[in-house]
Amino acid sequence: MTGYATSLGTSDEASITVLGQDLARDLMGKVGFGELAFWLVAMRRPTAGELRLFEAVLVCLAEHGLTPSAIATRLTLTGAPESVQGAMAAGLLGGGSRFLGVTEDAGRFLAAALAGRDRPATDGDWDELAREAVRAQRAEGHVVPGLGHNVHRAGDPRTPVLVRIAAEEGLRGPHLRLFEAIGRIHPEVLGRTLPLNGAGACGAVLCDLGFPVEILRGFALLARAAGLLGHIAEEMRRPIGFDVYENVDRATDYQPPLSPSI
Amino acid sequence: MTGYATSLGTSDEASITVLGQDLARDLMGKVGFGELAFWLVAMRRPTAGELRLFEAVLVCLAEHGLTPSAIATRLTLTGAPESVQGAMAAGLLGGGSRFLGVTEDAGRFLAAALAGRDRPATDGDWDELAREAVRAQRAEGHVVPGLGHNVHRAGDPRTPVLVRIAAEEGLRGPHLRLFEAIGRIHPEVLGRTLPLNGAGACGAVLCDLGFPVEILRGFALLARAAGLLGHIAEEMRRPIGFDVYENVDRATDYQPPLSPSI
Amino acid sequence: MTGYATSLGTSDEASITVLGQDLARDLMGKVGFGELAFWLVAMRRPTAGELRLFEAVLVCLAEHGLTPSAIATRLTLTGAPESVQGAMAAGLLGGGSRFLGVTEDAGRFLAAALAGRDRPATDGDWDELAREAVRAQRAEGHVVPGLGHNVHRAGDPRTPVLVRIAAEEGLRGPHLRLFEAIGRIHPEVLGRTLPLNGAGACGAVLCDLGFPVEILRGFALLARAAGLLGHIAEEMRRPIGFDVYENVDRATDYQPPLSPSI
Amino acid sequence: MTGYATSLGTSDEASITVLGQDLARDLMGKVGFGELAFWLVAMRRPTAGELRLFEAVLVCLAEHGLTPSAIATRLTLTGAPESVQGAMAAGLLGGGSRFLGVTEDAGRFLAAALAGRDRPATDGDWDELAREAVRAQRAEGHVVPGLGHNVHRAGDPRTPVLVRIAAEEGLRGPHLRLFEAIGRIHPEVLGRTLPLNGAGACGAVLCDLGFPVEILRGFALLARAAGLLGHIAEEMRRPIGFDVYENVDRATDYQPPLSPSI
Repeated sequence: MTGYATSLGTSDEASITVLGQDLARDLMGKVGFGELAFWLVAMRRPTAGELRLFEAVLVCLAEHGLTPSAIATRLTLTGAPESVQGAMAAGLLGGGSRFLGVTEDAGRFLAAALAGRDRPATDGDWDELAREAVRAQRAEGHVVPGLGHNVHRAGDPRTPVLVRIAAEEGLRGPHLRLFEAIGRIHPEVLGRTLPLNGAGACGAVLCDLGFPVEILRGFALLARAAGLLGHIAEEMRRPIGFDVYENVDRATDYQPPLSPSI
Repeated sequence: MTGYATSLGTSDEASITVLGQDLARDLMGKVGFGELAFWLVAMRRPTAGELRLFEAVLVCLAEHGLTPSAIATRLTLTGAPESVQGAMAAGLLGGGSRFLGVTEDAGRFLAAALAGRDRPATDGDWDELAREAVRAQRAEGHVVPGLGHNVHRAGDPRTPVLVRIAAEEGLRGPHLRLFEAIGRIHPEVLGRTLPLNGAGACGAVLCDLGFPVEILRGFALLARAAGLLGHIAEEMRRPIGFDVYENVDRATDYQPPLSPSI
Repeated sequence: MTGYATSLGTSDEASITVLGQDLARDLMGKVGFGELAFWLVAMRRPTAGELRLFEAVLVCLAEHGLTPSAIATRLTLTGAPESVQGAMAAGLLGGGSRFLGVTEDAGRFLAAALAGRDRPATDGDWDELAREAVRAQRAEGHVVPGLGHNVHRAGDPRTPVLVRIAAEEGLRGPHLRLFEAIGRIHPEVLGRTLPLNGAGACGAVLCDLGFPVEILRGFALLARAAGLLGHIAEEMRRPIGFDVYENVDRATDYQPPLSPSI
Repeated sequence: MTGYATSLGTSDEASITVLGQDLARDLMGKVGFGELAFWLVAMRRPTAGELRLFEAVLVCLAEHGLTPSAIATRLTLTGAPESVQGAMAAGLLGGGSRFLGVTEDAGRFLAAALAGRDRPATDGDWDELAREAVRAQRAEGHVVPGLGHNVHRAGDPRTPVLVRIAAEEGLRGPHLRLFEAIGRIHPEVLGRTLPLNGAGACGAVLCDLGFPVEILRGFALLARAAGLLGHIAEEMRRPIGFDVYENVDRATDYQPPLSPSI
């Protein structure tokens, strides 16, 4: 039988190796948690600038109040208080195409628009590339991922901050530049002005950091795991899960099936 | 209907608030991911020393190679490659009493031994408290959580590093001091020498950082989420899940039930 | 390497074997789904009477409206509509000690009370055994599992039906008889009259069918899986998940943490 | 606030209503578990013939030995033996596009090929419709869902049994007839002969029973829940999870990352 190849971790009686490093000697106390998470996926240590930008993305995605995921986590802890892992897992399972998918979808859209193209030289060239991409998407009847937000209609406050941090760290790469261009040109193509949302900007940034689009949702999940842990701790201190259940239950509008009875 | 109280996050059209801070202005680019995770649970920002110690714990717990959790994550991705969230959730679900429970169990044991006691003044007094606790546990036929390791029999390399970092940051608190004392005195009580394992040391440290024992397993899960993300990314690049399945399947030793057939 | 022993299923190029039977020839079209579920756990085919009683238990536990589990399933489908498996898993994860635990706890309590005892001969002897068990439980400050219901205060309609079906099939065994005796004598011990709930009766019946207590929660989960599938299908036809989220979100009472800001 | 409409379950102090029926009086002891599962999704009670065919599908899909799902369930129970719900959820999470998707994909493919077409009158007309569908699928570079099996290369024994039961019950509907036609004509289009697999046949049958394709995977998951319960019970009696872990761990081929170290 061939062995199972991995570059992540292994151990023997005297030492633990993670990412080719001695965990106790070289990583603990020397490498931050966000830094380790980057390294575990990228298989390389981030630079200081990359790390600051990457952690800004994780901080951006971690917590958004009583989302469907957070409610699911709290209801699950209500029914199974002994199983912290079940409560966290239940919340993560809502991180699918609709709520956490924007980050991945935006990254995929931007990467596809850039594939096989020369990098534009001027802002005007970026705008032209953005126009093409938005027009093509619209022609197929699809929305542009990363554009629009149901609450922050006049502008998502996270997006300019991510752009600024990327610029400060010299990491404003092609995905983010194209995303910004979409923000400039979409009104003329779509006939209305929408905000560039933060989840989409995170997707652009993660692509510029070199991550493949398939893994982008995973970072949103990792960030969300921290937020859900906050909800678990708060639910333990000051529970609302049972109240949510009772309020939903009381509002049940029972409608017997229309089909003939037995 | 009364409102659902939360101190985590909320938003309105113009801003997003997390932990009472303006997410975009005050947190993104200024607060690290590990720092945010501490804050989300503790409801207070850690000091620099607390943060270094806390991140050392998360780094310590993140990744240990092809554990049952990691294998479950990879097998789940094999069957449902479209669902990164399902693969991560499946791996976290193995983080229960046996594999991730040590951190929580050690914290609980140490907290119980300290409850209602004056803090010992000398190393000798710590040793006496440890002797009492280990004897009582043994008298009830229970093992001492945090003592022993199936691989690192001569000493877990993570434990002295955590003790050193705690000391460097002035955070060697009562739970860790009691844990260290257990390391010194258990041979005379139990008649054999066992290592203080890293998971137990993490539990002691997290208690000293002020976290309630109920939430300790949650930090192990958060750390593990980063490790599992590494496994998901590696499984996408260089899959082993299907091979694991085939090797297990081929080694099936089918034994029909003994009961009479239909 | 030793093989992995299993009596459940295996296959070769020409046939599929499940429980020692030829799946296609001997099981499909001849064995019902509930029957197969019994057999998969018990490693023996149920009699017709056992099967009727067993399926009554599964039907009893399958669906109870908008429970925390059902709400979690619907919220998860809202966020990840592409992942039916994630929605079902999220709902099952709430099936822990508080909501689905009664079946298991009741079975465990009854089995412990019967362990090492001769079977009582008369109703009076059953009552005496029940008195002892209830008194002992009360002396330790514990509730009696299976006693009490937050909605059906005057009597759970499922319990007498399970007793009747068990009697009709000649399967009113010691666990159920002890449970019935608890229903008769608890008012004199506890000073108030509580209903014998259906979940507890299911635990008694499953023990009488020969299942070990450790697996009882699993039957509640299997039954619940059918109910959750109903919720998934209804959520697809007539969604409420997003409304639940919006109503909870709107009722958020945001309270910034008390600790000093950054 | 508008109420949350549901036709599944509700209760008041004296009664429990499921599907418009009195649970205790009308369902328990009178309706089987498979029957209830059909009803919960279809919102109508199945006929006796429909029920037999439906249960044959569930029995067909329940258990296939040490699959990735079953291994994930066992590894999860190894790490978290206190959480039966977590072990079952972990196994279900592997029921995604690759392993359980065939049933849904086959149903979707057949439904699309039938949409807007008159029902063929003769076997020859069915063959012609099948030819069109297989050719179109091939032209787009896609495989035909339900065709081919990695073990049962010369024929999946489940398929003819499902066809026979459907015929016996007068339920050989358009999806199954088209599926059978694909079995006849695909060699001339594809240039090789592949078996019609059982999972695909199940998809055809479920569509003929009137279920929408979106819910098909859910039945595969329900069936699988019974099989996983069998694995959980067997793992409790005769564990293999830890051995699987150790064998995988020992076969680790550790390859440090190629990138430069710290």
